[in-house]
Amino acid sequence: MKFSFKNDYSEGCHPNILQALLQYNLDQQAGYGEDEYSRQAKDLIKEKIKKPHSDIYFISGGTQANLIVISSILRPYQCVISAASGHILNNETGAIEATGHKVLSIETEDGKLRPGDIIPVLESHRNIPHQVMPKLVYISNSTELGTVYLAEELETLSSFCRQNGLYLFMDGARMGHGITSEISDLTLEKVAELTDVFYLGGTKNGALIGEAVVFNNPDLKIDFAFNIKQKGALLAKGRLLGIQFLELMKNDLYFDLAKHANNQAMKMKNAMKERGVQFLSDTYTNQIFPILSNELIEILSESFEFYVWKKIDEKKSAIRLITSWNTGDKPVDHFIEIITKELS
Amino acid sequence: MKFSFKNDYSEGCHPNILQALLQYNLDQQAGYGEDEYSRQAKDLIKEKIKKPHSDIYFISGGTQANLIVISSILRPYQCVISAASGHILNNETGAIEATGHKVLSIETEDGKLRPGDIIPVLESHRNIPHQVMPKLVYISNSTELGTVYLAEELETLSSFCRQNGLYLFMDGARMGHGITSEISDLTLEKVAELTDVFYLGGTKNGALIGEAVVFNNPDLKIDFAFNIKQKGALLAKGRLLGIQFLELMKNDLYFDLAKHANNQAMKMKNAMKERGVQFLSDTYTNQIFPILSNELIEILSESFEFYVWKKIDEKKSAIRLITSWNTGDKPVDHFIEIITKELS
Amino acid sequence: MKFSFKNDYSEGCHPNILQALLQYNLDQQAGYGEDEYSRQAKDLIKEKIKKPHSDIYFISGGTQANLIVISSILRPYQCVISAASGHILNNETGAIEATGHKVLSIETEDGKLRPGDIIPVLESHRNIPHQVMPKLVYISNSTELGTVYLAEELETLSSFCRQNGLYLFMDGARMGHGITSEISDLTLEKVAELTDVFYLGGTKNGALIGEAVVFNNPDLKIDFAFNIKQKGALLAKGRLLGIQFLELMKNDLYFDLAKHANNQAMKMKNAMKERGVQFLSDTYTNQIFPILSNELIEILSESFEFYVWKKIDEKKSAIRLITSWNTGDKPVDHFIEIITKELS
Amino acid sequence: MKFSFKNDYSEGCHPNILQALLQYNLDQQAGYGEDEYSRQAKDLIKEKIKKPHSDIYFISGGTQANLIVISSILRPYQCVISAASGHILNNETGAIEATGHKVLSIETEDGKLRPGDIIPVLESHRNIPHQVMPKLVYISNSTELGTVYLAEELETLSSFCRQNGLYLFMDGARMGHGITSEISDLTLEKVAELTDVFYLGGTKNGALIGEAVVFNNPDLKIDFAFNIKQKGALLAKGRLLGIQFLELMKNDLYFDLAKHANNQAMKMKNAMKERGVQFLSDTYTNQIFPILSNELIEILSESFEFYVWKKIDEKKSAIRLITSWNTGDKPVDHFIEIITKELS
Repeated sequence: MKFSFKNDYSEGCHPNILQALLQYNLDQQAGYGEDEYSRQAKDLIKEKIKKPHSDIYFISGGTQANLIVISSILRPYQCVISAASGHILNNETGAIEATGHKVLSIETEDGKLRPGDIIPVLESHRNIPHQVMPKLVYISNSTELGTVYLAEELETLSSFCRQNGLYLFMDGARMGHGITSEISDLTLEKVAELTDVFYLGGTKNGALIGEAVVFNNPDLKIDFAFNIKQKGALLAKGRLLGIQFLELMKNDLYFDLAKHANNQAMKMKNAMKERGVQFLSDTYTNQIFPILSNELIEILSESFEFYVWKKIDEKKSAIRLITSWNTGDKPVDHFIEIITKELS
Repeated sequence: MKFSFKNDYSEGCHPNILQALLQYNLDQQAGYGEDEYSRQAKDLIKEKIKKPHSDIYFISGGTQANLIVISSILRPYQCVISAASGHILNNETGAIEATGHKVLSIETEDGKLRPGDIIPVLESHRNIPHQVMPKLVYISNSTELGTVYLAEELETLSSFCRQNGLYLFMDGARMGHGITSEISDLTLEKVAELTDVFYLGGTKNGALIGEAVVFNNPDLKIDFAFNIKQKGALLAKGRLLGIQFLELMKNDLYFDLAKHANNQAMKMKNAMKERGVQFLSDTYTNQIFPILSNELIEILSESFEFYVWKKIDEKKSAIRLITSWNTGDKPVDHFIEIITKELS
Repeated sequence: MKFSFKNDYSEGCHPNILQALLQYNLDQQAGYGEDEYSRQAKDLIKEKIKKPHSDIYFISGGTQANLIVISSILRPYQCVISAASGHILNNETGAIEATGHKVLSIETEDGKLRPGDIIPVLESHRNIPHQVMPKLVYISNSTELGTVYLAEELETLSSFCRQNGLYLFMDGARMGHGITSEISDLTLEKVAELTDVFYLGGTKNGALIGEAVVFNNPDLKIDFAFNIKQKGALLAKGRLLGIQFLELMKNDLYFDLAKHANNQAMKMKNAMKERGVQFLSDTYTNQIFPILSNELIEILSESFEFYVWKKIDEKKSAIRLITSWNTGDKPVDHFIEIITKELS
Repeated sequence: MKFSFKNDYSEGCHPNILQALLQYNLDQQAGYGEDEYSRQAKDLIKEKIKKPHSDIYFISGGTQANLIVISSILRPYQCVISAASGHILNNETGAIEATGHKVLSIETEDGKLRPGDIIPVLESHRNIPHQVMPKLVYISNSTELGTVYLAEELETLSSFCRQNGLYLFMDGARMGHGITSEISDLTLEKVAELTDVFYLGGTKNGALIGEAVVFNNPDLKIDFAFNIKQKGALLAKGRLLGIQFLELMKNDLYFDLAKHANNQAMKMKNAMKERGVQFLSDTYTNQIFPILSNELIEILSESFEFYVWKKIDEKKSAIRLITSWNTGDKPVDHFIEIITKELS
């Protein structure tokens, strides 16, 4: 069977999690997130972000987190601003619109939003009350294109949002990868300071399911549990989420796993770069987009699974390679071996 | 720590499931329910219901299954009919209404719907177009009151629904308990014949999460996957659901677990019955509602956790006891011991 | 052609309105409610309620007013409390649920809500977050059963709502009839003091279309215009609504029309009462519900149109008679004549 | 007071309509669109389109018509395709998204959609079930930019939609202006043949309110009345809509009014064209977009109201001039006079 670089959720979960599930399995616990493990996991996260008064909720997946957070915050006529590459715009089957809210799309080079991108949108939405009111800025870190926000970029964006009465929401499905990227100077603490709400993704970083939604803005967290329940997202056995985040947060396993995934991608990236390969975008996380000849793509596809991302011209395409917390050295070395052979 | 009879989701999951999660953990699989385990689990269910053309989807929990199924079937002006005790009416934070659909409530003695209950509702909703159009009948088996549908009752209801252009949807959060009740003559095959759509609950019967939604009416299953994704319910690691149902359906583990829970409840019920205890309703599943003196309730509450369900008079109340797939003999024997001592 | 007592919207509008439409017809005005007539009409209403800071919006009809007001106020998980006879529960095709909000129904004798009706509903909705949160109390004046709120009743209810964090919303589709009822001691000023939001119905009191929504609670009126536009209720030619309310509010025409309708109904009521007729409810507005023999009903139906409202026994039924701003003396006298003849 | 060229809904309505409202005012009629005038008006429209089996519904305004039609047709996961200039995208406060449906935006030169515009959208929405499913194509005629569909263009688009399982919906807020444009070869009959549903706008063509929605595709019209009522758009006094369309359809008044508006615009256009003025787009309806010097714009704005539409460069801008059914010769001649003087 071919090794898959298609995504970072092909395998199960980190062994520590299964171990903990086994260990606590027969303990009786309160349902719906009132269990002991969830409490402990939340404490670890609050400690990490140094925000003892933040509210934390565990939710199964990213689309679910996005739609519940957004629909809980906005009034019916308010809308979201997102980069055109945003997950909510392309890969969530209109989940946000299904809750009644428009998502305004902004074309960007690198999947990141800056004040200069947002200003024209605000200016073209002043025909009150004939237009939706932009109210929440949605960003991802790392982005859907594998790029990351630097501390200064996030500070500038956050400050712009606050001046303009916009909420700032960070989709952290790949927060671990963003924060531990070799070029990143962001910390989770900083993220908590600069956003109104964000989440820490588990699904793409070693959990079976689970995203930890963190409300930093006290105005927004009111009654959030009702929204979770109403959208069908409150697990009876909330322990399943609590135990996973407890294991991930202990000893920073969460960050170690993400860093590992990043490293494996960087090894492949550097091997290709040294041999003159160009990339669709210059990423430093677990997603890389090399531009390769059709012949080389065909050769690689005999050994690996991956997505052909974008046709560049008749002879070349960009492919997307994603590594995970569990991508071992063997497939990475094998990949580099082929590259080395074919490009020398 | 006191043993809890509060619900059937206090513990983790059946050990076979953890074993399988461990065993398959590092295999790479396609995401979003396209994994091998999900395929196998669906085949086992189709075999069991003898409906090779049914469509099966795995969803995390009951509220989620209810809201996605109902909102995928109904047109905006159509509504649901439910017994007043229905889970969708009382314990789902208005999840169905949040998708735009009214739920009409019918008072019943035992939580079960019969044609005679539904006819007046149809008759009082004929002022077109000023009223919602009743279109889907929601029932639970076993019901929220612990009662079960007999084959003849379901046949009568199903036939009534078909004659009146109503869809019949069975919430099977406790399907195992209903089917394996000592007084039940229903089979899963029969359920599939008589309903348009139903689900097999895993969460309350030994899984960590998971309900298997089964579409029997081919008109209704069209494009259901879009609805799952749009409501944030499509797990990236669908394997988590697939593996669980694969284990539960193998060798009828699912039914054995439910029968065990029922048996443990019946032991307690019979012990009380022999000593003259009356019950709020005469149930044969894993939920029992004995009416006990306040003194006895206090004594029991020193050893056990449970809900006081309904005040009967100044001296007596009904309590609710729920057993699970994992309720051992020890707490049951201890409970009976106290009862025997106090009521002799 | 038979004269119709079926409802109060069978005719066009009061001639003053047509006269004004004619007079202002070719003046150019700003669209979307920014016209001069709307401004003047709002000023007259504010003067009448002695609330210069209230916000007023004109909307075409009652269902539209109900759904926009309610959906603009509530968060997704909050719900409405209404008497079982409430218009939003029975005659609006689930319009409130279609905006995502459940409506809890309370059985009452006379269509009016009192704190004692509401307390049990609050008490049975404390299972956070598994149940909807009651947040808005919906009442009608006059009610759908023709009854009216007395000042003391509304004061008690208003004070209860404020103590319990509930908004109070009065559907005033028949506000004129309620206020001008011979037994009413309520004034519009009082209504504005005691409710968070209410509306003055035009459609059932001499206008072609139009309800004037009045926000008294400053917290609730924020950005309401966006909600009107988003629900498709912002008329380009808002002048149509402005001109109508301008005419209705001038010299209290609105109240005179309602009083006239009430009077015509009372004449028929008194004529029947004197002859020993019983009534389904004891109303003092433009709706009366006499209980008559089937024979008499048949005789009356040769000359009039009306609804047979409720079968009382094999020999008798209650009918509903509604009078309007335009019900002349001729049909009323004719009706009384028949009654006099048949019941003497 | 300055004459306004800002829009086509600044005045009241055509005098025939007021005359008819006066004439029928005191006749009692059934409510909710079951009146005699509505029936007659529908018959006239069916005759005009030669489709005796089409279903026709009257609705107050365009945004309301758009949102009810679209939400009644689409399943939750289906979406709309619209030109970027579409009214539903820019001027309806997210009304379509508020019903749960995404609107995909396509940039066009002239506000018209062609198969070549739609194909890439279909191709980029094939990642089932992670993306919304395009299902309805929304077009306007005349468009928001004043342009019109020629018969061949509509035939090509209609045939493309049918081949691709897409519904075709024409927003006809300015249908009269589109059809009677001097360059148009479309007839209403042809529109009915080629679209699944369209509407005839009254508000912008001499009515006080009102759009006539015409369902040509029998699959789509099922139970539409429920949707109208649920969205709060069913007027108790439906006669107000019926009488207006009856007058507008009699002797083709509807088309005469639109043609008049077009002619007045064309006079101004030609006067400018002759003097070398360029236009933002080459329109033949009641909307024109001349590009003028800032000085000239200032001079014109002393006598007229209009919108400055788009800044072209430091010295020039395009303005928008709209004429209506009631734009007399006086303001048009005055406008031409100024142009003639200033540009000679």
